[in-house]
Amino acid sequence: MLPHALEEVIEALGMLPGVGSKTAERYAYYLFKSNEKVSESIAEALSTLHKKVKSCPKTFALIDVDETVSPLYSDPTRDKTTILVVEEPLDIYAIEQTKTYKGTYHVLGGAVSPIDGITPEQLHIGELIKRVNDDNAKEVIIATNPSVEGESTALLLEKMLHEQNPNLKLTRLARGLPLGVDLSYADQITLSAALENRTNL
Amino acid sequence: MLPHALEEVIEALGMLPGVGSKTAERYAYYLFKSNEKVSESIAEALSTLHKKVKSCPKTFALIDVDETVSPLYSDPTRDKTTILVVEEPLDIYAIEQTKTYKGTYHVLGGAVSPIDGITPEQLHIGELIKRVNDDNAKEVIIATNPSVEGESTALLLEKMLHEQNPNLKLTRLARGLPLGVDLSYADQITLSAALENRTNL
Repeated sequence: MLPHALEEVIEALGMLPGVGSKTAERYAYYLFKSNEKVSESIAEALSTLHKKVKSCPKTFALIDVDETVSPLYSDPTRDKTTILVVEEPLDIYAIEQTKTYKGTYHVLGGAVSPIDGITPEQLHIGELIKRVNDDNAKEVIIATNPSVEGESTALLLEKMLHEQNPNLKLTRLARGLPLGVDLSYADQITLSAALENRTNL
Repeated sequence: MLPHALEEVIEALGMLPGVGSKTAERYAYYLFKSNEKVSESIAEALSTLHKKVKSCPKTFALIDVDETVSPLYSDPTRDKTTILVVEEPLDIYAIEQTKTYKGTYHVLGGAVSPIDGITPEQLHIGELIKRVNDDNAKEVIIATNPSVEGESTALLLEKMLHEQNPNLKLTRLARGLPLGVDLSYADQITLSAALENRTNL
């Protein structure tokens, strides 16, 4: 009933995460009503995505296809003896925006999750241990997500890294109240952590 | 900091309605992690959208570029003397899915909205009046959205169509309780309408 080309756009956009048929319809109709250039620029960007982006073989950050390693690793002003470990490449972007961290990164590629079938062997843990040795790392900052999977991955990393090198300093991102959240809306675990790790005025 | 090609995808997807930078990042990273074919099929569908879809010059429904008028109008089993008027082309799709309507459609292309600068002249009202005369229409069903803009457009259409032809039957979609909504959650206007238009058992 709908024009075939429009049906195809709706179906294609429906493949995006969390996009149902109603949202896909809205996107498709919006694109049809917009200037043809909008659809074309999305089409163009998408068609080169896989050709121009790859994973850094050292840190597993996303890099341009013509780079050998992540510039956040090769940069000589970056302290290679501090490694901040994240689950996904975009987490690096969030931390870089704080402009306060001067060490290097390591992307695990997810978190251990028996439900989703993600085992420790599928994560880049072996490469992390190798880097810790090769770069004589002094500190590993574990910045996995504050989820059940992220927590258990952090515990696993702690155990494995401590076994390898008992002198390695292992730290985690602090728990506490985020900015702008009302005390009464904070969950119990966050509040307990905020109270326990209270700072002097 | 992010690879240029990925930034471009994030920026491009951020042009979709209601998609902010975080959602665009999530879409882009999901596409990067997915098979290259997913991005390619979206790119392909989008690049042909404007080349293969156009507006029907008669009903303003969306049609294939090689069709002259909407098949929902040219179909001889469709009753051309009944015209259902909607704001947007996708509204037709919603009504067709009920499989109960056998008349034809007319798309206004929006609703009168002084705030958004949409005047009656920008809508396909003139073409509707012409169709009413050309096809000797007996009934016009006004199915604009139940919003302030939709209501005022309906009133305007009623006035204009009545002036043209006082014998034309003008109807509107019924107001009442939608299926599955608890009585206590229904708004006052809907409840009043449901009470006023109560049906015999």
